[in-house]
Amino acid sequence: MTKKPLILVTNDDGITAKGIKNLVQIASTIGEVVVVAPNSPQSGMGHAITINDPLRIYKSDIFEGILAYECSGTPVDCVKIAKKEILKDRKIDMVLSGINHGANSSISVIYSGTMSAAMEAAIEGLPAIGFSLCDYSHDAVFDHAHEFIKEIIIKNLDDFPQKIALNVNIPHHTKPIKGIKICRQAQAKWVEEYEKRTDPNGRDYYWASGYLENPDKGEDSDEYALKNGFISVVPCHFDFTHYPQIDSLKKKFI
Amino acid sequence: MTKKPLILVTNDDGITAKGIKNLVQIASTIGEVVVVAPNSPQSGMGHAITINDPLRIYKSDIFEGILAYECSGTPVDCVKIAKKEILKDRKIDMVLSGINHGANSSISVIYSGTMSAAMEAAIEGLPAIGFSLCDYSHDAVFDHAHEFIKEIIIKNLDDFPQKIALNVNIPHHTKPIKGIKICRQAQAKWVEEYEKRTDPNGRDYYWASGYLENPDKGEDSDEYALKNGFISVVPCHFDFTHYPQIDSLKKKFI
Repeated sequence: MTKKPLILVTNDDGITAKGIKNLVQIASTIGEVVVVAPNSPQSGMGHAITINDPLRIYKSDIFEGILAYECSGTPVDCVKIAKKEILKDRKIDMVLSGINHGANSSISVIYSGTMSAAMEAAIEGLPAIGFSLCDYSHDAVFDHAHEFIKEIIIKNLDDFPQKIALNVNIPHHTKPIKGIKICRQAQAKWVEEYEKRTDPNGRDYYWASGYLENPDKGEDSDEYALKNGFISVVPCHFDFTHYPQIDSLKKKFI
Repeated sequence: MTKKPLILVTNDDGITAKGIKNLVQIASTIGEVVVVAPNSPQSGMGHAITINDPLRIYKSDIFEGILAYECSGTPVDCVKIAKKEILKDRKIDMVLSGINHGANSSISVIYSGTMSAAMEAAIEGLPAIGFSLCDYSHDAVFDHAHEFIKEIIIKNLDDFPQKIALNVNIPHHTKPIKGIKICRQAQAKWVEEYEKRTDPNGRDYYWASGYLENPDKGEDSDEYALKNGFISVVPCHFDFTHYPQIDSLKKKFI
């Protein structure tokens, strides 16, 4: 690639998050960056899109010298309106999402607004990478991840598989990074707990919390890589068909 | 199964929709039904979950003789709180979602609240089926689908593949149903169009609309089945890993 690549950056923690600031900083050393990100936190929004309400986009000067827009919609809306409206006359070379404050490994990929934005870009035929850090705090430290993120972007810029989004998870800054591992999604799931409370008007409400339960002992999974100090990279696709089941289901409906 | 099966019914159009009323009616002829459905329309919510707000659930007498709850959350929240709170002491035999007012074939599965509820049930290890009708109207006609839906539920009640949700789409009532086809997800995608308008205060906003673009000519796809008058059934899973890409990505990071 001789011309400076055009990189669209989005996230799900909202345009003011520390994670997207770090990603914009890294991407700016590689290409021309345009930001289209939610104007409010959108964690756990999955692949939600705005159907029954209109969308609003406003220019933002939050990133010095970078063209940026804040959008009233979801992370997936941001990718759609960036491609079809804001950058409709230009070729987007790559879409980056994140850096998420918190892990999106194993089953979290399905709930994640960060990864859903990347998946939407993949559906649109664009090279797409979602980055997440194993640190949920507002004030997470991203410095240790910069060089690795840059390496992952550069190595995928000119040669990216069609209809794939990469799910990249990065260990917490207190854990020295040993390297990068290409993995599969661990077969883990969230176990929810609901805490029932009563509001001052005597009506019940529930707070959800939970933990990741991981019975998957495979050493090729993203959870295993992260646990052992590696950055995990999972190639994700959006054909949900479970092909081996087609034949056994056919037998039921002969 | 000798005991009456316990069937959880949910949807994404909300508890007052005609589609869920029809599904409750059908499921009640097969088992004991409990409804936990959103208290407002949740179309296009994908796999969104409520993280930063509490959830509320209220008993509803909308379905005569059926235990029902309306929930302030998303379709996925409904499945989670049903399993972990409302029905925590009971074994759920099947989760049904729908009947959606509108198709959820091909790539629509990723945006669909209906199918995301079914997928969440599959993650929880429960047999799960999402039903959608190719008719977006509020007043859609479901009568022609009843017998087929009943057949699909019964044939899957005692023998359901692990970690799978079925995505069932049903032709419009004006199209005679020729039968049931087990399919793969068509490789189609939505093409968005944004219409820019200006509000009375002089600020711009955008309405999204779109159409499904389907270059997939395969005769084994869900779109093909529907076009030819068949009900499509796609087995869906939630491991997003694209396994063939793992090896080629590994070569980049040696």
